Amino acid sequence: MIHPNLATMLVFLTCDAAISPAMLKKALADNVKDTFNMVSVDGDTSTNDMVAILSNGLAGNAPIETDNEDYATFCAALNEVTTTLCRMIAKDGEGASHLLTCQVTGAKTLRDAKLAAKSVACSSLLKAAIFGADANWGRVLCALGYSGAEMDIHAVDVSFRSHAGVIDVCKNGASIAFSEENAKKILLEADVDVLITLHDGDASATAWGCDLTYDYVKINGDYRT
Amino acid sequence: MIHPNLATMLVFLTCDAAISPAMLKKALADNVKDTFNMVSVDGDTSTNDMVAILSNGLAGNAPIETDNEDYATFCAALNEVTTTLCRMIAKDGEGASHLLTCQVTGAKTLRDAKLAAKSVACSSLLKAAIFGADANWGRVLCALGYSGAEMDIHAVDVSFRSHAGVIDVCKNGASIAFSEENAKKILLEADVDVLITLHDGDASATAWGCDLTYDYVKINGDYRT
Repeated sequence: MIHPNLATMLVFLTCDAAISPAMLKKALADNVKDTFNMVSVDGDTSTNDMVAILSNGLAGNAPIETDNEDYATFCAALNEVTTTLCRMIAKDGEGASHLLTCQVTGAKTLRDAKLAAKSVACSSLLKAAIFGADANWGRVLCALGYSGAEMDIHAVDVSFRSHAGVIDVCKNGASIAFSEENAKKILLEADVDVLITLHDGDASATAWGCDLTYDYVKINGDYRT
Repeated sequence: MIHPNLATMLVFLTCDAAISPAMLKKALADNVKDTFNMVSVDGDTSTNDMVAILSNGLAGNAPIETDNEDYATFCAALNEVTTTLCRMIAKDGEGASHLLTCQVTGAKTLRDAKLAAKSVACSSLLKAAIFGADANWGRVLCALGYSGAEMDIHAVDVSFRSHAGVIDVCKNGASIAFSEENAKKILLEADVDVLITLHDGDASATAWGCDLTYDYVKINGDYRT
């Protein structure tokens, strides 16, 4: 039961930076839009979501009270923590055997990039294909097509990436020759990235999810037996 | 790969009524909103959907050219055929062991009724619970909560029904005592109805889906091995 907005999670972030409550709140509110709200395990939102941040100021830095360079440094550090947590949450999804990271670049707007990334990360069909380590890029295009994001489907490139390498599987919305064997090797790794380039602008977004496995069904369906 | 709008399907309806092309088109367009567009197996829309209707006029009736009583009779007959097909499509979903019919009544508007019914029919968590024959009404309320439909969650009643009987499991949005054994007997049947009353108006809608099973994962994930 994990899905934006937020996920089934109680997140408590603690820090020792000196930062005003207003700037701390702004940093977190801006950050969750691109992090915790871009995580999905099964499309079911939770009834128990929260993220809180506390900072006690003991670091002794010049207090951050405006949108200055120190604030940017603080936000970058916060983003590193929250992004790491997002990956941990998705990877720990019910029955998951793969962490699925969907990166969309070249979108016309941020909204389009987020819609596209989330749609791919949430597709039951793609999630099942990743479980089977199959480079089924048709399912990526299918999820892009119904995402509601504006795009020229004939300009879309798709690649799969993991620690075992990277492989291009779709160019300009069409099939290209690739080694199925190599693709399988890449997709058998635990962390798989789906890289989608829309060639339509400068906006980008990342969504995190996981594969759909027998164990997801077992945990959520067979729990009484 | 089945989801509104329409589903992965090529539907050809044939008939011998005498009806003008305009009225035939209107009858079908109005009908699909409540039938084929309310079917979902896994949330992934298809790239191959169509529904066509042909009527050759050989029945020899007075041609239907306006929205009259004969037109209403025609629409009712059409609805019986399309509803039956919707049930067949959902029941035949990849790996499905249950047909899931979600009936929402007492909604404020038709839009609310449809959003609510579809949301429940599409919930991976509820679909997994139905596979396990568990009367997990909390997952019904969860799906209602994120559906986007307007409702007072404290006025919601939920029951499960099948050929084995009917059982109330939630009243006014809260738990009520019920026999788990009886609920299980009802949910082990192949056709299960989730009955949701919102007590907020007169609108109603039905959505058709199926359970989420090991075989769904096998068919869509393990097809290469």
